[in-house]
Amino acid sequence: MSGNSIGQNFVVTSFGESHGPALGCIVDGCPPGLALTEADMQRDLDRRRPGSSRYTTARREADEVQILSGVFEGKTTGTSIGLLINNTDQRSQDYSNIKDLFRPGHADYTYQQKYGTRDYRGGGRSSARETAMRVAAGAIAKKYLQQQFGIEIRGYLSQLGPICAEQLDWDEIERNDFFFPDAGKLTALDEYMRELKKSGDSIGAKVSVVATNVPVGLGEPVFDRLDADIAHALMGINAVKGVEIGDGFAVVTQHGSEHRDLMSPAGFESNHAGGVLGGISSGQPIVAHIALKPTSSISIPGKSMTVQGEQVEMVTKGRHDPCVGIRAVPIAEAMLAIVLMDHLLRHRAQNLDVTSPTPVLGMR
Amino acid sequence: MSGNSIGQNFVVTSFGESHGPALGCIVDGCPPGLALTEADMQRDLDRRRPGSSRYTTARREADEVQILSGVFEGKTTGTSIGLLINNTDQRSQDYSNIKDLFRPGHADYTYQQKYGTRDYRGGGRSSARETAMRVAAGAIAKKYLQQQFGIEIRGYLSQLGPICAEQLDWDEIERNDFFFPDAGKLTALDEYMRELKKSGDSIGAKVSVVATNVPVGLGEPVFDRLDADIAHALMGINAVKGVEIGDGFAVVTQHGSEHRDLMSPAGFESNHAGGVLGGISSGQPIVAHIALKPTSSISIPGKSMTVQGEQVEMVTKGRHDPCVGIRAVPIAEAMLAIVLMDHLLRHRAQNLDVTSPTPVLGMR
Amino acid sequence: MSGNSIGQNFVVTSFGESHGPALGCIVDGCPPGLALTEADMQRDLDRRRPGSSRYTTARREADEVQILSGVFEGKTTGTSIGLLINNTDQRSQDYSNIKDLFRPGHADYTYQQKYGTRDYRGGGRSSARETAMRVAAGAIAKKYLQQQFGIEIRGYLSQLGPICAEQLDWDEIERNDFFFPDAGKLTALDEYMRELKKSGDSIGAKVSVVATNVPVGLGEPVFDRLDADIAHALMGINAVKGVEIGDGFAVVTQHGSEHRDLMSPAGFESNHAGGVLGGISSGQPIVAHIALKPTSSISIPGKSMTVQGEQVEMVTKGRHDPCVGIRAVPIAEAMLAIVLMDHLLRHRAQNLDVTSPTPVLGMR
Amino acid sequence: MSGNSIGQNFVVTSFGESHGPALGCIVDGCPPGLALTEADMQRDLDRRRPGSSRYTTARREADEVQILSGVFEGKTTGTSIGLLINNTDQRSQDYSNIKDLFRPGHADYTYQQKYGTRDYRGGGRSSARETAMRVAAGAIAKKYLQQQFGIEIRGYLSQLGPICAEQLDWDEIERNDFFFPDAGKLTALDEYMRELKKSGDSIGAKVSVVATNVPVGLGEPVFDRLDADIAHALMGINAVKGVEIGDGFAVVTQHGSEHRDLMSPAGFESNHAGGVLGGISSGQPIVAHIALKPTSSISIPGKSMTVQGEQVEMVTKGRHDPCVGIRAVPIAEAMLAIVLMDHLLRHRAQNLDVTSPTPVLGMR
Repeated sequence: MSGNSIGQNFVVTSFGESHGPALGCIVDGCPPGLALTEADMQRDLDRRRPGSSRYTTARREADEVQILSGVFEGKTTGTSIGLLINNTDQRSQDYSNIKDLFRPGHADYTYQQKYGTRDYRGGGRSSARETAMRVAAGAIAKKYLQQQFGIEIRGYLSQLGPICAEQLDWDEIERNDFFFPDAGKLTALDEYMRELKKSGDSIGAKVSVVATNVPVGLGEPVFDRLDADIAHALMGINAVKGVEIGDGFAVVTQHGSEHRDLMSPAGFESNHAGGVLGGISSGQPIVAHIALKPTSSISIPGKSMTVQGEQVEMVTKGRHDPCVGIRAVPIAEAMLAIVLMDHLLRHRAQNLDVTSPTPVLGMR
Repeated sequence: MSGNSIGQNFVVTSFGESHGPALGCIVDGCPPGLALTEADMQRDLDRRRPGSSRYTTARREADEVQILSGVFEGKTTGTSIGLLINNTDQRSQDYSNIKDLFRPGHADYTYQQKYGTRDYRGGGRSSARETAMRVAAGAIAKKYLQQQFGIEIRGYLSQLGPICAEQLDWDEIERNDFFFPDAGKLTALDEYMRELKKSGDSIGAKVSVVATNVPVGLGEPVFDRLDADIAHALMGINAVKGVEIGDGFAVVTQHGSEHRDLMSPAGFESNHAGGVLGGISSGQPIVAHIALKPTSSISIPGKSMTVQGEQVEMVTKGRHDPCVGIRAVPIAEAMLAIVLMDHLLRHRAQNLDVTSPTPVLGMR
Repeated sequence: MSGNSIGQNFVVTSFGESHGPALGCIVDGCPPGLALTEADMQRDLDRRRPGSSRYTTARREADEVQILSGVFEGKTTGTSIGLLINNTDQRSQDYSNIKDLFRPGHADYTYQQKYGTRDYRGGGRSSARETAMRVAAGAIAKKYLQQQFGIEIRGYLSQLGPICAEQLDWDEIERNDFFFPDAGKLTALDEYMRELKKSGDSIGAKVSVVATNVPVGLGEPVFDRLDADIAHALMGINAVKGVEIGDGFAVVTQHGSEHRDLMSPAGFESNHAGGVLGGISSGQPIVAHIALKPTSSISIPGKSMTVQGEQVEMVTKGRHDPCVGIRAVPIAEAMLAIVLMDHLLRHRAQNLDVTSPTPVLGMR
Repeated sequence: MSGNSIGQNFVVTSFGESHGPALGCIVDGCPPGLALTEADMQRDLDRRRPGSSRYTTARREADEVQILSGVFEGKTTGTSIGLLINNTDQRSQDYSNIKDLFRPGHADYTYQQKYGTRDYRGGGRSSARETAMRVAAGAIAKKYLQQQFGIEIRGYLSQLGPICAEQLDWDEIERNDFFFPDAGKLTALDEYMRELKKSGDSIGAKVSVVATNVPVGLGEPVFDRLDADIAHALMGINAVKGVEIGDGFAVVTQHGSEHRDLMSPAGFESNHAGGVLGGISSGQPIVAHIALKPTSSISIPGKSMTVQGEQVEMVTKGRHDPCVGIRAVPIAEAMLAIVLMDHLLRHRAQNLDVTSPTPVLGMR
């Protein structure tokens, strides 16, 4: 398998560049019988869409997805689902000036070196524009997981630069432009972003994503542990530099007596593990956090190189998000959904005939 | 593919339980012509071996690996390499008392729920004993990468509980029992571990791993980015709860002007990215960090459950490491080696005929 | 991986139904730098196209392929290539009468039983219409193999019902509507087909496909032998019931002294093996043959069942080829091209550093 | 994935050479709870074993398989199963004389060219000795399929050179040394083989394999059709040059009115399709045939080459089967079992939640 597919039994394969005619993906392995329309995907596409708030890029894309196959009379048929989104607001001329430049902190240099060529318009394939298809595919997984098992997958911005959420109000998240769960800090966020825009700089962020009602048993040790596959999927999102499951890096200074989640007939008494033990879901909520770097597309000049090896000082023009972490929330949800869906199918493949285990701890 | 394989072109598939007769793995895709003997693997196996210091488990295993195929007259033939390590010090009777118990913080519960059964002896397949095969397979990748490209992969313990390394002295690492790069803190470490053993508790740790001389261009966007596959491999190590590439979670509070690595004809001026841009290696050192939880195998009593759903209080007996992070150093190196090897082969597959790109920045 | 992908390093994933809005595929793993336009694919698409001769279905499709990604400034970039063909002549109303019927000899029954539903319009996903994407993807592989290695892949109709080709005139093949290499039998073929059309029946066929200038060494034993993967790809073409490599079933009555291809400094003295020894290409022409069943879409009434389990007698209406084998020629070529391309990349992955073997026998 | 694995959800990965210390394989994805001992595999290993009759090679191997993991207290645990067979009768000195020779019709030349080296002892990895592991792994699949679904997989020798079976007496097959189903022709077979041995030549054969009680619905179109995967698995057996499903090459001269299997409430009225329609099992018996070439290991001199490119005349010494087709019977059964098992798991992955379709035609 080359690198544009993810999953083993629920497989998403994508194509498309920032400024090409269209983006698309194929979702292979979706069980038949799922009611599915474009509207099921559009909600999350709209949440991710550029131009949806003043804090994100000014590029405007309708991001209207079309279902080209795999759905008949409103339901999935079990065959491969073709999805397409036409690019409508690509302005390639914006980018002709960077044809021979490597923007620092971007993939320009590595794509050029790897392939000996690159589509330099807006980053080409390395642009986060490609994540629209992940969101579309993830919405199918989300719907299936929700309908069949009541699994809910929700993300939020847990930190933007120095501003941390101290409240986790799930209702608040969809009310503001930041996917931020702490209403008391929205003013601070707004001020911070205004200052940031003025400065021409960008900022990092932390996004958290949680899945509830996940059945016990998902994950295929020893290499395709559920947490390993979640790490793969989340680290594969543009700009992500770190992934945590449960307590994450806080475990470095924890003692075993503090970290281990004790069990009683009522269930686990804590969730330091983040819902995964030995690489297999425990029935507790799956909790993951990711760190997103500040975009390198800023208007502050920086030293860089031309393709020919000459030193230059450059400024990134174009339309960019000052904090790419914000729009990463629906992307992280989508990737977690894809992983859970894939593992659900893998689990089923092996275990259908096993007598369902006793639901100890009230968890199944 | 089920879950006991890792890699696409360089594929490692493993088997074996903590207290079964043997562990083994098959390494498929190793190019022919590599000089290989058991001794090439034994060095790293010895570094990982239980019983090698007073800070690790008292279980004693020779961990002698045998090559059963794929090597002829001292060189690899290009066919699959079979490796075997016999278990010699398994004491199954140690574990009969936990047959019907779920040890808190262990995989007992999730394995039982997933499979409806489990090999309870020493954790069975969920035991870190299995990582011996990863170290053996990784040693093959390490040797190949070193010989063909001069790639060096080295790890160290960067933090044990509250004690952080402040010096990075590569020579020091192999001199002490902790793989610790800061000689000035060894006494503190020794004292900390003695106290910990007395208390019967365990502690978390942070391990860092670095690969140098990595060619530009490894990584297959958009899903099998090099960093995504590294995250998959490292999060798949027992007890790991977090993975960082480069600056990792520190990026959350960084500005773009601070994070982006500027470029000059002499090369990159910094390495916040950790050697990966857009999911492709940049030629800079690959830098990754992992957080390892404190083992739940401690002698402090904790509430747990029986398989039948009854409340119990239990103490984990047996021979365990108070800090599993220490022995994780060679394992993390091995996993990074396996990922780099796989991506090297994948890169080659696609790009052989491409004219080698101009080695700008002195990096190829 | 679910079933709509083929290949490991050169991966083709397809979607689309006979009467949906469009067909498409993603070609992942194509090396960068290959000059590619729609015209490169159109020639083979036209050869496969319905309505191109009086001997094939009356359905008329332009089969115009669009490249949506992976090509920049006329060359492949190394990223995934998205291809799309809109369906233009679907007449779904033709098929409403078979909604509740299982046409005998078709996939109606098995799709319905497998998925619990089916897109009954023209066979939905089971229609050979889907093979248009294989031809488009195969054309990319063909061009690459031709340009880089001079590999030529050509097919022909070797038998139609009782009429066997006795001459193999490569120039003749593209001159007639049958891809038939024996001009002397064209009148007989024409008469046979006229009679067949009158009778309302259909006929089986044998198609042969040959690849020349294939490098020695392609194939990955022991399971992904080159011949095994060719068998997989060719048996996966609609209506194929048999695959032969080299002498095929004739070997059953051969002696070893007759079958083995003797070697001399000038090369092999015969090619009973069909270019594959031990699952690896020998440098001789790869020769494969396939048997295609007569389509079950005929106007002769036959007993069948409704979805509800009632007995019916039915006649297949719609527009069908009386001999599906004819149009299978470009499809077989495409599948062989995809397999060779994939194996070329797999071979490269493992062997780049191996000293190129001595070109004994003048074969490299 | 490199080439030593087969399957997606039920994955068999093998290693081992003809004259190395041992052969082995890992079976990954076997559901938990299957009762399994070495004896379950030994029966088929004994059927395949060399030296078991006067018509096969004189090499004597006990072929005693050991289970090294994945089974606990007599049942599979759902983790990877490690299997090992030690080689006991390898006589490497037999082969030193062919070190620098390419035996005509063998893989010597292609292995040498592909890898630049080869284990020349008995063919190394290209030896059919490797198929012992396939038989062992296949026995696990066979047992599972039999126990869970009553699926029976049985093979027989349908033709040896000019001698065709005209009776299909299932009871007879295991009574004679040929797996031949027609007792009336055993004398002729015996005479034929005696003459053949005297002549020092070898002969081809045809083997048939049938699976009954296969559920409807197995197969993943469009590329991983059940028949395509069967073709892959069977063509991947040493010496196989052709694969047929159902009527196979006989379809070339059939009419649609003759080939299509009509349906009535009592079931299908014939089985020309061989149990697969549109790449999905129909519930009818799966029927496949393979053509096995005569081994090139014969004592009749033949022209060949040295590694250095010099012409030689050579005779193959060593201990060889005059008709390798005979012992291929249990191998073909094993490969069919592995494919069916894999597809059963893949089918389950996607379809668990689908309402079981109405069992029309009495086939489910």
